[in-house]
Amino acid sequence: MSNLLETLQWRYAAKKMDPSKAVPQEKVDRILEAVRLTATSSGLQQYEVFVVTNPALREQIKPHAWNQGQITDSSHLLVFAAWDNYTAERINAMFDLVNEERGFKNEGWEAYRQMLLNTYPQRDAETNFQHAARQAYIGLGTALIAAAEEKVDSTPMEGFDPAKVDEILNLRERGLRSVVLLPLGYRAEEGDWLVNLKKVRRPREQFITVLA
Amino acid sequence: MSNLLETLQWRYAAKKMDPSKAVPQEKVDRILEAVRLTATSSGLQQYEVFVVTNPALREQIKPHAWNQGQITDSSHLLVFAAWDNYTAERINAMFDLVNEERGFKNEGWEAYRQMLLNTYPQRDAETNFQHAARQAYIGLGTALIAAAEEKVDSTPMEGFDPAKVDEILNLRERGLRSVVLLPLGYRAEEGDWLVNLKKVRRPREQFITVLA
Repeated sequence: MSNLLETLQWRYAAKKMDPSKAVPQEKVDRILEAVRLTATSSGLQQYEVFVVTNPALREQIKPHAWNQGQITDSSHLLVFAAWDNYTAERINAMFDLVNEERGFKNEGWEAYRQMLLNTYPQRDAETNFQHAARQAYIGLGTALIAAAEEKVDSTPMEGFDPAKVDEILNLRERGLRSVVLLPLGYRAEEGDWLVNLKKVRRPREQFITVLA
Repeated sequence: MSNLLETLQWRYAAKKMDPSKAVPQEKVDRILEAVRLTATSSGLQQYEVFVVTNPALREQIKPHAWNQGQITDSSHLLVFAAWDNYTAERINAMFDLVNEERGFKNEGWEAYRQMLLNTYPQRDAETNFQHAARQAYIGLGTALIAAAEEKVDSTPMEGFDPAKVDEILNLRERGLRSVVLLPLGYRAEEGDWLVNLKKVRRPREQFITVLA
């Protein structure tokens, strides 16, 4: 078994975290760097990550996330927030950055920029947000692996009121909408009902179909 | 730098693959196993993965994916296909499997099942499909890392006509809709415009915000 498969077997959605244990900053930094490096559609990185360590903000968020204890018992609460829309400005900023970093303009790349400019900003905002939100899930999948590699526990959470979280963190003013939460911390020694239960997945033949 | 960060730096979206090189089956198996093991919302695994090696099927798909060469030059074309809707049957099947594998019924888990049964099947199919599709992107993020760990090249593709792919692979009859494609193969020695270009990401301070 490869290291990655062991890492994925180790991971679970921690149900109770120990508030006395904080994730070391260098581990958090490596988890965030993995998310920054992973893929997004057209390389646009159409989401941002907020790292909420402020206790008052986390207390404010908690009642809007079914009072899940990990919101405040974790040491770092990651909030993945996707672009609320695609604009020419956002698309151009990324293509300009690519040209600047690579030191030249590529004709095919510029044609691709024009294609996106002629497509995305004209679509409705909800379609664009949904597309951006999917990219945040690539980041989430990456963060889950990165955290587990560091032996850091995490709990992916969709059970929260995004409008309230947007309000508490002033995301709408920044053109962002919260998509998914990921508390990072360490499992409590007692009180986690899931920690010792078997990880269950559909058998391979019900999940994978080979068309040969 | 951790192994994972090196793996993510190595990865890129291969633009030209060598059709004479096939990914060994044991590598494909480990990549698929990583996807099977990763997280999904409520553990429902609300998508499936099709591994298309059949050349005729891939030739049929290619014109509906902007004629991208990797569709046929890769050795394995992964198609992530999400549930078109949530039904009581699908939800119950997964909760029943969990009980069977763990050998007991958990009261909290059963209450959670009821909550999902009282929520998901009543929502419109499009909302449910979009939610399922997001989970497939966790799998995509996982597959990108798993492939790179095996030094296998891959190219995530959203540029295709899902309705046509659904038709070619008979996905709708199975209650599935194609979401994203991932050819697996090996980069060609020549003709890949992206392979030697710098990976560009927004600087950390434009991607990550700490709220302390």
